[in-house]
Amino acid sequence: MTGHLYRDPAAPVAERVRDLLGRMTLTEKVGQVNQRMYGWHAYERDGDGHRLTGAFRAEVAAYDGMGALYGLQRADAWSGVGLADGITAADGARVADAVQRHIVENTRLGIPVLFVEEVPHGHQALDGTVLPVNLAVGATWDPGLYEAAAAAVGAQVRARGGHVALVSALDLVRDPRWGRAEECFGEDPYLAGRLTEALVRGMRTADVAVVLKHFAGQGATVGGRNSAATELGAREMHEIHLAAARAGIRAGAAGVMAAYNEFDGLPCVASRPLLTELLRDRLEFDGIVMADGAAVDRLVRLTGDPVAAGALALNAGCDLSLWDACFPRLAEAVAQGLVTERTLDTAVARVLALKFRLGLFEQPYARTGEQRPEPHTPAAEQRPDPCELSERIARASITLLAHDGGVLPLAPSIRRIAVLGPNADSIAQQIGDYTAPQRPDSDHVTVLDGIRSAAPPDTEVSYAPGCDLVGGDLSGVPEAAALAAAADIAVLVLGGSSARSGDTSFDTNGAAVVTSANPAGMTCGEGVDLADLRLPDGQLALLDAVAATGVPVVVVLVQGRPHALPDLSGTAGAVLSAWYPGPWGGRAVADVLFGAAGPEGRLPVSIPRSAAQLPVFYNAKDHGYRGYVDQPATARYAFGHGLSYTTVAYAPPRLSRARVTPDDPTLICRVAVRNTGERPVRETVQLYLRRLSGGSSWPRVRELRGFARLDLQPGRRPTPCSRSTPTPSAPSPGTSASPSSPES
Amino acid sequence: MTGHLYRDPAAPVAERVRDLLGRMTLTEKVGQVNQRMYGWHAYERDGDGHRLTGAFRAEVAAYDGMGALYGLQRADAWSGVGLADGITAADGARVADAVQRHIVENTRLGIPVLFVEEVPHGHQALDGTVLPVNLAVGATWDPGLYEAAAAAVGAQVRARGGHVALVSALDLVRDPRWGRAEECFGEDPYLAGRLTEALVRGMRTADVAVVLKHFAGQGATVGGRNSAATELGAREMHEIHLAAARAGIRAGAAGVMAAYNEFDGLPCVASRPLLTELLRDRLEFDGIVMADGAAVDRLVRLTGDPVAAGALALNAGCDLSLWDACFPRLAEAVAQGLVTERTLDTAVARVLALKFRLGLFEQPYARTGEQRPEPHTPAAEQRPDPCELSERIARASITLLAHDGGVLPLAPSIRRIAVLGPNADSIAQQIGDYTAPQRPDSDHVTVLDGIRSAAPPDTEVSYAPGCDLVGGDLSGVPEAAALAAAADIAVLVLGGSSARSGDTSFDTNGAAVVTSANPAGMTCGEGVDLADLRLPDGQLALLDAVAATGVPVVVVLVQGRPHALPDLSGTAGAVLSAWYPGPWGGRAVADVLFGAAGPEGRLPVSIPRSAAQLPVFYNAKDHGYRGYVDQPATARYAFGHGLSYTTVAYAPPRLSRARVTPDDPTLICRVAVRNTGERPVRETVQLYLRRLSGGSSWPRVRELRGFARLDLQPGRRPTPCSRSTPTPSAPSPGTSASPSSPES
Repeated sequence: MTGHLYRDPAAPVAERVRDLLGRMTLTEKVGQVNQRMYGWHAYERDGDGHRLTGAFRAEVAAYDGMGALYGLQRADAWSGVGLADGITAADGARVADAVQRHIVENTRLGIPVLFVEEVPHGHQALDGTVLPVNLAVGATWDPGLYEAAAAAVGAQVRARGGHVALVSALDLVRDPRWGRAEECFGEDPYLAGRLTEALVRGMRTADVAVVLKHFAGQGATVGGRNSAATELGAREMHEIHLAAARAGIRAGAAGVMAAYNEFDGLPCVASRPLLTELLRDRLEFDGIVMADGAAVDRLVRLTGDPVAAGALALNAGCDLSLWDACFPRLAEAVAQGLVTERTLDTAVARVLALKFRLGLFEQPYARTGEQRPEPHTPAAEQRPDPCELSERIARASITLLAHDGGVLPLAPSIRRIAVLGPNADSIAQQIGDYTAPQRPDSDHVTVLDGIRSAAPPDTEVSYAPGCDLVGGDLSGVPEAAALAAAADIAVLVLGGSSARSGDTSFDTNGAAVVTSANPAGMTCGEGVDLADLRLPDGQLALLDAVAATGVPVVVVLVQGRPHALPDLSGTAGAVLSAWYPGPWGGRAVADVLFGAAGPEGRLPVSIPRSAAQLPVFYNAKDHGYRGYVDQPATARYAFGHGLSYTTVAYAPPRLSRARVTPDDPTLICRVAVRNTGERPVRETVQLYLRRLSGGSSWPRVRELRGFARLDLQPGRRPTPCSRSTPTPSAPSPGTSASPSSPES
Repeated sequence: MTGHLYRDPAAPVAERVRDLLGRMTLTEKVGQVNQRMYGWHAYERDGDGHRLTGAFRAEVAAYDGMGALYGLQRADAWSGVGLADGITAADGARVADAVQRHIVENTRLGIPVLFVEEVPHGHQALDGTVLPVNLAVGATWDPGLYEAAAAAVGAQVRARGGHVALVSALDLVRDPRWGRAEECFGEDPYLAGRLTEALVRGMRTADVAVVLKHFAGQGATVGGRNSAATELGAREMHEIHLAAARAGIRAGAAGVMAAYNEFDGLPCVASRPLLTELLRDRLEFDGIVMADGAAVDRLVRLTGDPVAAGALALNAGCDLSLWDACFPRLAEAVAQGLVTERTLDTAVARVLALKFRLGLFEQPYARTGEQRPEPHTPAAEQRPDPCELSERIARASITLLAHDGGVLPLAPSIRRIAVLGPNADSIAQQIGDYTAPQRPDSDHVTVLDGIRSAAPPDTEVSYAPGCDLVGGDLSGVPEAAALAAAADIAVLVLGGSSARSGDTSFDTNGAAVVTSANPAGMTCGEGVDLADLRLPDGQLALLDAVAATGVPVVVVLVQGRPHALPDLSGTAGAVLSAWYPGPWGGRAVADVLFGAAGPEGRLPVSIPRSAAQLPVFYNAKDHGYRGYVDQPATARYAFGHGLSYTTVAYAPPRLSRARVTPDDPTLICRVAVRNTGERPVRETVQLYLRRLSGGSSWPRVRELRGFARLDLQPGRRPTPCSRSTPTPSAPSPGTSASPSSPES
């Protein structure tokens, strides 16, 4: 076997693929596009170690190989693998190697398996470092920081044997009712594109291949309903929803995941126009297309038959399945003439090419040499980088939405702080969906923890939750109001929660279903869509009761989606969105409250006034709409908005041509900014374009085309800072550029 | 001139067009695609009669002809022509003839002008009979009745000289926030198609050509915002939004109006994919495409220049302008090479063909011989047919949404009725948008009038509005509650209003703008979109106060769109939607309340629980969605719902093949229905299909494919009644059929 061309690391990948493919049986080919098994079912505990299961051995034997194995390391409520049963990083690497060795050594061709892991915001494995959710990453406007975090997370994945990271990146929050809003970088294609690029780059430095979720348009489903139909014209699709995919492909993404939703009347996994004509022919993508979990099984509803469903998806352009019972039967589909072996070969070739590119044939085992110590237990003397990066993202994401009368940063004279609200002291409620169980003894920091730590020693910090997250029990409100009345300031931590109660099951298609009524009050997360976006009545009652005491109120929103906000002027002296800030987010919040850091976040998504006015994204077509008769059509706080603790003056922007080459269309926009206040600031300069004439469609209100983050000291002199990046839709003489000026 | 081929009535239209076109100068051609002038500016009062204006003569002279003249008879707040200045039917015919004579006798080729009139629900001219709005027509599910009404209205139009009726028919209420929801036949393509067909047929019997508004997809704009972008995939467009257009074209519609909205990124008036590739090439439509009012002017924003804007619209497929300043300059566009004269010829040919088909070259004048007496003033001894048809539509449209405990029909024992609410006694608020001013001495009937007339002689009817339609003034609530407390029953007439205050102006593009804050409380109508669909707070407070008296409450909703309804069980004993029932609608409502008629209406549109759950149309794709975490995704009352005063039993449907020809795909569905109650009923049997397997997209929850209205006497034996109509998407063996069973 060693003499075969496909074994030669010096041979071009295409030739190795061709050679190997030529040696494969139909069954072996089917095995390579097959990702049926849950990884956590491949092994079981055996004393202090683990042993491979019979089910795993049988699966390998059935196809004399295995294309990919999903979630070997995964632990969470959905997988049913909790804290007690979860596998540690070191054990995970050992199990991965045992799985790999079994496959490599017990199959005819010895093709290594791809280990595919969920890495939505950190590796969804026990002790994987949790980053703030993607929506918080969007609020940082800091691709560099995110790239570093992605690299650190990728190293964790690789150290445990993982090869492929599944990461949400392609969906945009065009309807904040969608429970997966937290998984998006925001509503804007340019910002999402920059962050997707950073993600892929960061992961690639760790040799982790990224499969980008989800393709395509899933953030704009009808009614924000999960897995529903997305109705968009082709132009809106290209201008808005494909931008992140294009950026990710340019950056070298290994694959995309075909989404659950229907696009232009076809389920994405069954859409040849989407997966082949658009993705392959037009975007020239040559990576893999992985179907979403059991998405191919859903096609049985259309075909009446799993064999035909598999053929439908394969013919449309899916290369690799996930959990479904259809792709395993592709040999029957070939026999029945529903799909050609040649089409199957194309999919197999893409999977094999990825394995060759990742070097799996040369080194299929975990990079245990790079294994880091068990992270973030109190025993760990020094927190590793990923945790620090997680906290830095949290700090950079905190967005000051409203600020009256200088409540913040908290004055040194403050001696009594009442910390109130259902999100003030819950680690589960601040880390978001798609997270592994957190060790109770880890060093996480809730907002209450953070305030207690950061408050001057002679400060009294009181605490009461006041109400449930969503329940109507207001019995705690009087106690909370009393604490507020006795304090100099009330910090009210409200918002939502994606903490799963664990009462989940799997439906007939294998998709996870939250079966409980969620008494703990889950209001966000996959499958948890919210119609009315207001904060729950109980939280608003708590806010009113606390405000009625007359004590200054700071509202901190811990949330995975933008809640619709009423006009809080007169009620709250300051309103901050901290998103789901991750395990150490409480310290980041406290730093901003006490002024150790400024609020640096800028909205990655518009905050609506009500669900009744949806959609409210900032880059809508500008039809000169005058608003509804009962409320404005504009956002409460628009994309890009975010206050700071100082004032920054912008000089008029100046445009000039780059003239790198005579026909370079790049324009340079220079704008002088000056910190005119008294505190240092990290300012995000935002460059928007607006088409003044030309084109065949109405111009958008404005479109983000560049941004830069600057550290400005008080009184600092003007600094040139922003250069618009050359893109296919680069500014032309008919466009205008403006700095920030978000609506508010 | 008489010897020319185009003058020969025996020659085929195509040859007459070719002959005439060959004789025309470029200027004359431009004149034929030009509809710049408002018709009400063509004449002015002169003693007891009228004389033509200089502006009109100048317009004719400029192009040596005139393609079309819009709104010669129009009177309403928008046109600025009110009751005092409006033209009567007899004067209207005389003026039309004077205008026509001037054109025919003072232009080189003597091409008659097309008189184009707004006929959205009755001719929008003084004394034109107002029909209930289209949404009410939808609730009748009675194409036959509507066809008769359209014929009667068409005769009125023709008698005043009108040739072309502009009628809203193509838009579907897919987002009830849209202020023009009242102009739609509902949310369903099949029902809208049947009614559009009836409209065109009815108008054709009066030799009135119909231009169907609007093409295309305007009922599904983003956020329900008027004239905004419509985002739909091509399949949804074809399956849902083009059905009415296809039906109208089959029935012989003379034209369609290119809409304001943007579709797939292009303004409809500038969309060659829509107006040419789809409408001409695929739907094989050879009538005219008229641009919406000043819609072409809006393109100047894209082109920077009116000449180029006109060329853009003409090249896209618009044949005839409306008010814009661009088409009049098409000669310049030809000179500049922006459009070919050949393209212009195509548009001119379509306009000329319509004139030939209407017989205008033979008889260009009003059919004054068919002139009817001035209608519906008290002086008119006998009301003409159109008024009776209007009332019949109103009666058939009244939809009983909820009914607890036999409150209705009102018991003979009732002696004291309190009629309350802001819509109980306003004729302006019950006739809808696009209506001419009503004469104060006309025989209209408000709900209060109707109840007073229909109540037994010894019944005491009290009345108080209780609150404004939208204002927060609750000072009248106690009086209303007191009246309720003193009565046996309270009839609470709530809802919305499209009554324009008259404070309108025209924006720079010539589009009408409602400039006042509408203190009278307009909540519906063109340009009046509503975000939060709940009834205004004042109305809900009035309802609560009245219900708190303990007297039984009947809520009658007079509305142009479905308002989001809370659960009213326990508050109201019965809830009816009377839509905007037109001038005599109060009598229809009273007939239903007292049982002289049963409630026959069935919902043409789903009634939502809240704006937060939009969209809620019944024929959504069935993804097995389990609902939002805070509320169901289903409607409060679904499309097709409507209760009656009796009970009707349905036997299981039986399917059989038609076998008219061996390959006829038609299935016949027979279902036996029996009136099992004690009162006669007009029952609407509804046939829905649901795809059980096959196809490439998710099936819809259900799809209406047939319906029949049956008069059933109590105890009447089963009757065969419904036959599914053969359509391109006719049922196949893989489909299932079910009778009514609407969700509720």
